[in-house]
Amino acid sequence: MVDTVRRVAVLGSTGSIGRQTLDVIRATPQRFRVIGLAAGKNLELLAEQIQEFKPEFIGGSSENNDIGRLKDLVDINIKPLSLSEIASIPEVDTVVIATSGNAGLRPTLAALQAGKNVALANKESLVSAGEIINSEAGKSGARILPVDSEHSAIWQCLNGEDQKADRIILTASGGPFRQYSAEQLTEVTVGQALRHPSWQMGQKVTIDSATLMNKGLEVIEAHWLFNMPYDRIDVLVHPQSIIHSMVEFIDGSIKAQLSYPDMRLPIQYALSYPERLPNARLPRIDWNQVRNFDFEPPGYDRFPCLRLAIEAGKQGGTCPAVLCAADEVAVELFLAGRIRFTDIASAIERTLEQHRLITQPTLEEIEAADAWARETLLKTVSGVK
Amino acid sequence: MVDTVRRVAVLGSTGSIGRQTLDVIRATPQRFRVIGLAAGKNLELLAEQIQEFKPEFIGGSSENNDIGRLKDLVDINIKPLSLSEIASIPEVDTVVIATSGNAGLRPTLAALQAGKNVALANKESLVSAGEIINSEAGKSGARILPVDSEHSAIWQCLNGEDQKADRIILTASGGPFRQYSAEQLTEVTVGQALRHPSWQMGQKVTIDSATLMNKGLEVIEAHWLFNMPYDRIDVLVHPQSIIHSMVEFIDGSIKAQLSYPDMRLPIQYALSYPERLPNARLPRIDWNQVRNFDFEPPGYDRFPCLRLAIEAGKQGGTCPAVLCAADEVAVELFLAGRIRFTDIASAIERTLEQHRLITQPTLEEIEAADAWARETLLKTVSGVK
Repeated sequence: MVDTVRRVAVLGSTGSIGRQTLDVIRATPQRFRVIGLAAGKNLELLAEQIQEFKPEFIGGSSENNDIGRLKDLVDINIKPLSLSEIASIPEVDTVVIATSGNAGLRPTLAALQAGKNVALANKESLVSAGEIINSEAGKSGARILPVDSEHSAIWQCLNGEDQKADRIILTASGGPFRQYSAEQLTEVTVGQALRHPSWQMGQKVTIDSATLMNKGLEVIEAHWLFNMPYDRIDVLVHPQSIIHSMVEFIDGSIKAQLSYPDMRLPIQYALSYPERLPNARLPRIDWNQVRNFDFEPPGYDRFPCLRLAIEAGKQGGTCPAVLCAADEVAVELFLAGRIRFTDIASAIERTLEQHRLITQPTLEEIEAADAWARETLLKTVSGVK
Repeated sequence: MVDTVRRVAVLGSTGSIGRQTLDVIRATPQRFRVIGLAAGKNLELLAEQIQEFKPEFIGGSSENNDIGRLKDLVDINIKPLSLSEIASIPEVDTVVIATSGNAGLRPTLAALQAGKNVALANKESLVSAGEIINSEAGKSGARILPVDSEHSAIWQCLNGEDQKADRIILTASGGPFRQYSAEQLTEVTVGQALRHPSWQMGQKVTIDSATLMNKGLEVIEAHWLFNMPYDRIDVLVHPQSIIHSMVEFIDGSIKAQLSYPDMRLPIQYALSYPERLPNARLPRIDWNQVRNFDFEPPGYDRFPCLRLAIEAGKQGGTCPAVLCAADEVAVELFLAGRIRFTDIASAIERTLEQHRLITQPTLEEIEAADAWARETLLKTVSGVK
């Protein structure tokens, strides 16, 4: 075990999770080798990453044909691959899916079909197509390794237990507006919503954290990752974001995982599992500074996205895909200043209300529901502002 | 695994841990069979336990020849055995050592030599003779199963980890006098010291909790149970007593075990390990009630017993046995109203100062150091009051 080198492909290498993944690999270069890198938007950074990690394969998103422009930035002679091609390179052991939004679904399935372990930071794919993803993983025997800090915490707490969890307690920071009244929430600006109190993340997930949609998506993710009924997944607000989640067992004993909010820890655990690696870049909790933890129930009334997500999860079928796609568009509209903060939830709710549920959908039906939701949400909000 | 019946002997069955052990067994009678019971002081309760659990073997402490009087209380026809005989009955799988003080050492060794798994609630034996106990367990392959809530927490957190802990964080309630000044501590009464804020326990351990000697003994216990250097065992005061201890791994990730303070959970885990059993008698944490956790460093100056214990542990050899024995006598003197609360630490300190350390002592040398410490402490305090 000690001398194995994990061969890694990183999809979405220039985003927040992608960059932190490469930082983890940089800390222990003798244990990892970057075989593939793929990114869409930031070609300059991708070029730098290619120079540093010298991957054998590179890729870009299918929408982005600019990937050819890479040749102007870095001296390479590689034909760019699609994300799904990068995800299934035979030389790779672990594929890190760090793309955001629905672009992660096809590559995730490609990696699982090819028998790769998938370090999954893209929650939308599991939320939209959890049943299909689990089924593909089951067929090939590939593992889905959680990268979200909450699911990594649960995974770490379950490690070594013979029996499954009796209950999962997903902790939530509560976001920047935890103590805002319903009135105050209507006035929230983009700038305020992008200032998260404990985590540095990409824009989409930062807004989702402010609406608590992010926690709702995590409930659905936990359902699929840990085969846990929705009535056994609780959400608990813990503003310090040090306990990343908890697991309750049948004897009432609870295990929790703690660390400062730093995504590099769950990323590294997913890459090194079942081993843990020393990493001087990862901060240790200083108990002279950490003096108290608070807990409170989430404000389901003020943050309807959390309730909408849990309901969509319980409905199942195409509902979570509609939720995800509608949220992606609603967040874009909010970031563009076209709708208010509180319109995000109401626009998603109206989209879900119009949706005709398909149970046990195929991948194509999920993608059709996703496209329908995007279109419907846009129509829904056209009268809002 | 599901249908196995664990055959159990309980030494010290009428004390606090003994009674709670039988309560755990009562909750899942199909999984446990009580083969042996032993107690010294409370023959009436022992008689009731014999009627309920119908053990094949009974025993008493060697000092207590009253065990013959049992025949007046319950219709039995069994020759009472010594504690060490009960601990090594061939029909027994797990021996629960729930006797207090130095009476636990010989039976613990007898059980380990006979290859029994030992659920060890008696911390004094491991503190006094950790090296010998570990060596006997190593020879027979028997396991020492921690019953103290802190060590059970650490054990649960280590479960399934391939690598050992990088650091252990032992939590402490801080006891009833956590916020007392040095001045106020000199005035503490026996009645005040017996009212522990979070745990219901026997008198000796309740006083040890008030002086923080109990936490010091637990540091030494953790050193032996988890092969952990003293500079990697921290003590952290957490007055709510819900996090029972934590383990930090080499990647900086921390796992914690949580539950309401109830000794039946760690007792049950030791008895059912590696399985967990459902038990409706064990309370579940209600997060509507549990709203905050506080943490603070322990008051080493105001609670010198903690420092004395850690120093004795680092010295090693016969020092921890002297610490334990001196503490046992000092607590008795305090309970009898013969010395003040703050005299407990100073009397133990003066006893330790007079001790000539023997490194790598034999069992006989440990017992001699124990006897010497009792005598010396009594002489030391004869001038106190």
